[in-house]
Amino acid sequence: MARTGRRPGASSTRDDVLEAARARFAADGFRGATIRAIAADAGVDPAMVHHWFGTKQGLFAAVMDLPVQPATIVEALAAVPADQVGVRMIETFLDVWEEPDRRDRLTILVRTAVTNDDAARMIREFLVDALFAPVARRVSPDRHGLRATLAASQMIGFAMIRYVLRIEPMASASPSDIVAAIGPVVQHHLTADY
Amino acid sequence: MARTGRRPGASSTRDDVLEAARARFAADGFRGATIRAIAADAGVDPAMVHHWFGTKQGLFAAVMDLPVQPATIVEALAAVPADQVGVRMIETFLDVWEEPDRRDRLTILVRTAVTNDDAARMIREFLVDALFAPVARRVSPDRHGLRATLAASQMIGFAMIRYVLRIEPMASASPSDIVAAIGPVVQHHLTADY
Repeated sequence: MARTGRRPGASSTRDDVLEAARARFAADGFRGATIRAIAADAGVDPAMVHHWFGTKQGLFAAVMDLPVQPATIVEALAAVPADQVGVRMIETFLDVWEEPDRRDRLTILVRTAVTNDDAARMIREFLVDALFAPVARRVSPDRHGLRATLAASQMIGFAMIRYVLRIEPMASASPSDIVAAIGPVVQHHLTADY
Repeated sequence: MARTGRRPGASSTRDDVLEAARARFAADGFRGATIRAIAADAGVDPAMVHHWFGTKQGLFAAVMDLPVQPATIVEALAAVPADQVGVRMIETFLDVWEEPDRRDRLTILVRTAVTNDDAARMIREFLVDALFAPVARRVSPDRHGLRATLAASQMIGFAMIRYVLRIEPMASASPSDIVAAIGPVVQHHLTADY
């Protein structure tokens, strides 16, 4: 980051934190990076990082320009009966992806994850820790880790076909057809007996 | 392609055809490109292209360095009872992806499709026309287009989680656990009532 010629003040210090976080997440992964180390790299007090970004998840969401906070989704899904979580997950997923600006930002995220190994590591750790594992653990504690990745596989594959590769007829299918087709599958992954 | 200094002969002419095909597939997509146009671009008779590569599918597979011919998979699946196609599709998919050299080549294909719009178009047209649509059409003629993309979404998402992003525990799950978890879902996509 170019440090010459900038004006001093909170906004540039905040940018320093984002830049330090970006480097730490890439080097150490989402799990390995700590607020303390990021704050030290940026030369600020850890309390300021918490003040600006909340949790480490919030800081990661800011670094990755995520259009939605996973914690918001997890909280919303926590109120849904366990036998309806699959349908609600794909409904929520559609809500997030169907909005064009969010879709563009998420497509960039997918491209980054697929082409850069450091990015893939930090994104996978984040997705599991912040989103899929908490949901799967509540719905079905038994084998929740495998269930979480199964549900994730169906939803990420759906995003690939509909938004990234844009394969018809799925690319133009109605949201209600998508929910009817994929909701029961996500539910199956979360709760089926093995 | 550098044309100076090469030795004359069939092998370099064959390379000319591959180079011409690569450009045509990128410009016109898999559906729009024709053997006739590719042969003309390479300055050879179309019969030579058929002789070297068989069908347009075979030429595409050579251009993309595909580790397996989709026609081979479609033929093998044609002998499978309709109610077992889902399980056999994921078994076949595992066979192809678990071999390290094939996996590396397919990972490159995924990365190319995700990051390049021309590549995404030609790869999606090829996957649908050569692989998913023929299988879905036989198993379930009703809505086979949507069914094909649903089955594809589960399998591509599985490949993303297990091989590209390598998210645990799916990345290390046994093939039998994978088949037990995903086979019924692919079958559901191909045959469920909507």
